[in-house]
Amino acid sequence: MGTYKLYGYWRSSASWRIRWAFEFKKIKYEYIPVNLLKGEHSSAEHIKRNPSGKVPVFETLDSHFLTQSVAILEYLEELHHTPSLLPSSAFDKALCRALCEIINADVAPLQTPLVQKRHSSDPAEQLKWTQEWIRKGFTAFEKLLPKSRGPFCFGDHLSLADLFLVPQIYNAVRYQISVESEYPTLWKIYQAALQTEACHKAAPEQQTDATL
Amino acid sequence: MGTYKLYGYWRSSASWRIRWAFEFKKIKYEYIPVNLLKGEHSSAEHIKRNPSGKVPVFETLDSHFLTQSVAILEYLEELHHTPSLLPSSAFDKALCRALCEIINADVAPLQTPLVQKRHSSDPAEQLKWTQEWIRKGFTAFEKLLPKSRGPFCFGDHLSLADLFLVPQIYNAVRYQISVESEYPTLWKIYQAALQTEACHKAAPEQQTDATL
Repeated sequence: MGTYKLYGYWRSSASWRIRWAFEFKKIKYEYIPVNLLKGEHSSAEHIKRNPSGKVPVFETLDSHFLTQSVAILEYLEELHHTPSLLPSSAFDKALCRALCEIINADVAPLQTPLVQKRHSSDPAEQLKWTQEWIRKGFTAFEKLLPKSRGPFCFGDHLSLADLFLVPQIYNAVRYQISVESEYPTLWKIYQAALQTEACHKAAPEQQTDATL
Repeated sequence: MGTYKLYGYWRSSASWRIRWAFEFKKIKYEYIPVNLLKGEHSSAEHIKRNPSGKVPVFETLDSHFLTQSVAILEYLEELHHTPSLLPSSAFDKALCRALCEIINADVAPLQTPLVQKRHSSDPAEQLKWTQEWIRKGFTAFEKLLPKSRGPFCFGDHLSLADLFLVPQIYNAVRYQISVESEYPTLWKIYQAALQTEACHKAAPEQQTDATL
């Protein structure tokens, strides 16, 4: 038995989600960069890990590959339950997972570089398209948030909802959305999360493959 | 305490997933159609249920709304565990959830009418776009399937993976993809599932709001 492995990319928001879970749960893992700019995700070697040609890919202790961040996070939650990244009541758990899916299914898939480029070759139109889907998702996310005083989506209990929201806000800023003025509640969660050690250690700029 | 309510649309694949889970688990529910063609999903009444303006929406016994099919299905799985829609081992559970997300996050979001229309006003280009994303997803799905002899994704244990796959195949057929010849393994699962009572009762044409 070895160590968990994570094949990821510093700026991939889904990779950040998994790195953050590892840090929060204090699980040891090896981070193996896959350089998306060099096309390493389309290499024969990576396609063996994930036929979708995407990151992150998680490698279990007995060397099986798992894809899709939702599935990987639920796996870690099951095998390394404490500290938990899900609220305790069945309803709050469901609400938490719904918030994750707003990011995972309604926003992120529409802003991958592959989808942007397939939609249009015009950078201005790519930006407009991306901003529209992020804004739609954030508007719904903010309305569905439980009434809590923060600092996180579910009060002081960090949850999967934060792990999906925060990297998406990082992207939104890159895509020139003024999250602070347009979505002040989400922005507060973002700021609070970035100040925690686990989130900071998992952040893009802290990774060995970061190129700024 | 009343009955669970499901706000859905006969042809919505995500609504089909939930109806199928209700039927499979033999849970009583009230089906309330939301006519997408008449724009009822954008009505003030529906936005109160789901600020994303989408179906399905699930209403709990104590009248709280839940959105996002993944979250609703996990909620039903937690509260109505038997018969389970997840495989038993932690790894297979994760693989099952990864298969669900290939459909839920990599395919379905790119083929909603809203996204198709936003991408292009040309019906031929809409069709091409939709077919491309479905094919990418199905190719990965087929490669990730566990080696089982069927009839379902995880042998004779019906799982969430089937609940996501089958309605998507129904859509693929509508979008003129020859699933039978291009993805024969997926097609066999589709045929086997349609022959089960729970899947059949949940299918689009069986709903009160079906207009054929």
